Amino acid sequence: MLVQKYKDMLSGKSVIRELSEFATARGQEIGYENVFDYSLGNPSVPVPKEFTDAMVQMLSEMGTNALHGYSPSLGITSVREAVAASLERRFGLPYRKEHIFMAVGAAGALAHAFRLVTEPGDEILTFAPYFPEYGPYVNLTGAVLKVVPPDTETFQIHFEKFEEMLTEKVMAVLINTPNNPSGVVYSAETLQRLADILRRKSQEYGHTIYLISDEPYREIVFEGVDAPCVSAFYDNSIMCYSFSKSLSIPGERIGYVAVNPNCKDAETMVNMCGQISRGIGHNCPPSIIQLAVAKVLDKTADLGVYETNMQLLYQELTELGFTCVKPGGTFYIFPKALEEDAKEFCRKALKYDLVLVPGDTFGAPGYFRMAYCIDTEKVKRSLAALRRFVKENYA
Amino acid sequence: MLVQKYKDMLSGKSVIRELSEFATARGQEIGYENVFDYSLGNPSVPVPKEFTDAMVQMLSEMGTNALHGYSPSLGITSVREAVAASLERRFGLPYRKEHIFMAVGAAGALAHAFRLVTEPGDEILTFAPYFPEYGPYVNLTGAVLKVVPPDTETFQIHFEKFEEMLTEKVMAVLINTPNNPSGVVYSAETLQRLADILRRKSQEYGHTIYLISDEPYREIVFEGVDAPCVSAFYDNSIMCYSFSKSLSIPGERIGYVAVNPNCKDAETMVNMCGQISRGIGHNCPPSIIQLAVAKVLDKTADLGVYETNMQLLYQELTELGFTCVKPGGTFYIFPKALEEDAKEFCRKALKYDLVLVPGDTFGAPGYFRMAYCIDTEKVKRSLAALRRFVKENYA
Repeated sequence: MLVQKYKDMLSGKSVIRELSEFATARGQEIGYENVFDYSLGNPSVPVPKEFTDAMVQMLSEMGTNALHGYSPSLGITSVREAVAASLERRFGLPYRKEHIFMAVGAAGALAHAFRLVTEPGDEILTFAPYFPEYGPYVNLTGAVLKVVPPDTETFQIHFEKFEEMLTEKVMAVLINTPNNPSGVVYSAETLQRLADILRRKSQEYGHTIYLISDEPYREIVFEGVDAPCVSAFYDNSIMCYSFSKSLSIPGERIGYVAVNPNCKDAETMVNMCGQISRGIGHNCPPSIIQLAVAKVLDKTADLGVYETNMQLLYQELTELGFTCVKPGGTFYIFPKALEEDAKEFCRKALKYDLVLVPGDTFGAPGYFRMAYCIDTEKVKRSLAALRRFVKENYA
Repeated sequence: MLVQKYKDMLSGKSVIRELSEFATARGQEIGYENVFDYSLGNPSVPVPKEFTDAMVQMLSEMGTNALHGYSPSLGITSVREAVAASLERRFGLPYRKEHIFMAVGAAGALAHAFRLVTEPGDEILTFAPYFPEYGPYVNLTGAVLKVVPPDTETFQIHFEKFEEMLTEKVMAVLINTPNNPSGVVYSAETLQRLADILRRKSQEYGHTIYLISDEPYREIVFEGVDAPCVSAFYDNSIMCYSFSKSLSIPGERIGYVAVNPNCKDAETMVNMCGQISRGIGHNCPPSIIQLAVAKVLDKTADLGVYETNMQLLYQELTELGFTCVKPGGTFYIFPKALEEDAKEFCRKALKYDLVLVPGDTFGAPGYFRMAYCIDTEKVKRSLAALRRFVKENYA
């Protein structure tokens, strides 16, 4: 018999996917350049030339068995060393290869992190607004994801609600900064307060509460914004990284787990990741992609376009009267809708070929997300549609 | 707190890995060319030029966002279509893209197959000798792997033992033909009898017993050997394939699940794979590798060297008095040791720089595995060592 829980999931429709499909269909009618598709967080800037060059060079010059051979289950040693050295250089923590586990994208990294520290029935807390895939990512392990309601003033952490929900059953707290969907970067003050609470509660409950930090947007931080390193605030932290956004290679599924070098069991945890892999069919990311990212660790795609887009949208939205926290990074913005039901708001916007995603999906009803990883030219053209939409419906 | 079951696994030592480490260390002493390392099943023949050319061409000619962008979670549509067309052409079953789910290697494919059809506590049966990773692959899902003892005369299926163990708790049967470690290919007679039993027992128990067929060695079949398509014998079958061996690209982690088109729920099962992925951090194999294998589906590396090596070894082993089933494919051979304790036998062989793996690991004590995916030149040089080893210890 087929397993019912997966069968049941098939009837659940992804709002984002439906909107994206609408955008594609509408594009076939009126030309995709005329659809202001803000639905998908798919990087739009080209991959850095150095990545492509590294791939071609290896394909041309390396022996094929060395290039395409098995990676050790924790990742290729030289790659783990290079990642550790880069992290140490940038963040000042004493990372060594023993702290690094190469993973197939952030999803792969998170799948290992959750299994390291939770048994079925344990709780993981995260903060709204949040990436909706965290639900199945956590719940399908047997652990339970609980979502702390948002502080809609700042989209930092709602600490009162957090402390209420931080019971003895919570084994890990999951954060995502810079944040999808709000674009907000957690401040040093937020991270310090979070860490203090986790230390106090770990002691009170007699077990470590781990901090799992999902950081795919780490390299997309706007001018003048301070984006502190999460791991510097809390020893028992697990960094989950993906190169998808920084190098514009989301399809290549490459990232890593970096356990905090100051975490007591760091090396054991990395070795445990290799065991977890055996149970979930992970078995290390593709060799050639590991080797290629190791050659461009300190490069990024030209990410400046995202800031340009953000400025254009933020200015227009605030001028139109939207309540909106200014993003500090990512390629998302998360304004308050102009009516209570954000789904209805987004439905109306479709008539203007504006594809917006209601915040309900992200645990923040009444808000909506725009993913502005699209051409600046299109962002500019969308502003008139946005104005018309607001004027004709909410003036 | 760290999860104990993974921590406990760290103390378990892999015999194969220990032997391989011995071989490497010994190689540093006497030169690796003088170590007759038959421990690892790592493809040794070069990757076909067409694969490398396809990679370079895409890197040179395609837009980077199209090339490295997100794949749909079931796999890139054109790749699924190409795989289905190739399977239909070769095996005559009406495969369509709806039956294909692209996976990160056979491990990824199996991880999905197991979760499709078993709940925690359910049983999966496999047949000794078997690939030892099946243990953690299955048991870490919560299901239980049970191993049917070998028919050591033929290394086909021991049907009496199988029928005894095929209780109501068994939801799936897992086979691997051509087989690691025996090199044996299941005959049409074996597959027919297996399918008949599964049909009869499915009816008796009132639930489908699925047949999961792990086929990474499908393309390595020796002259004159008939290697029937497993899926042709049984509708409720799930084919798990990897390109690791056929293209010599084990590090690139690329394979697929192909659900039998005649299976009632085939399309649902493929869609369920996309949901399973969310819980195990799979999220589709790397885009560029998917696109590259789709261009070389009907190519293989030059696999003939494995047959040459097999013939050399089989002849020598039988002349030396070993009991040995002649392999029909793969790059393994699985003779009976010359003393009861194969571990002791393999330990003695190390003095002759012969690295052999005891069969205990594969569920067949008293036998040993040789992985002859090494240079033919080295195989030839190893024969003298083999003769000396036998003469000095078992004459």
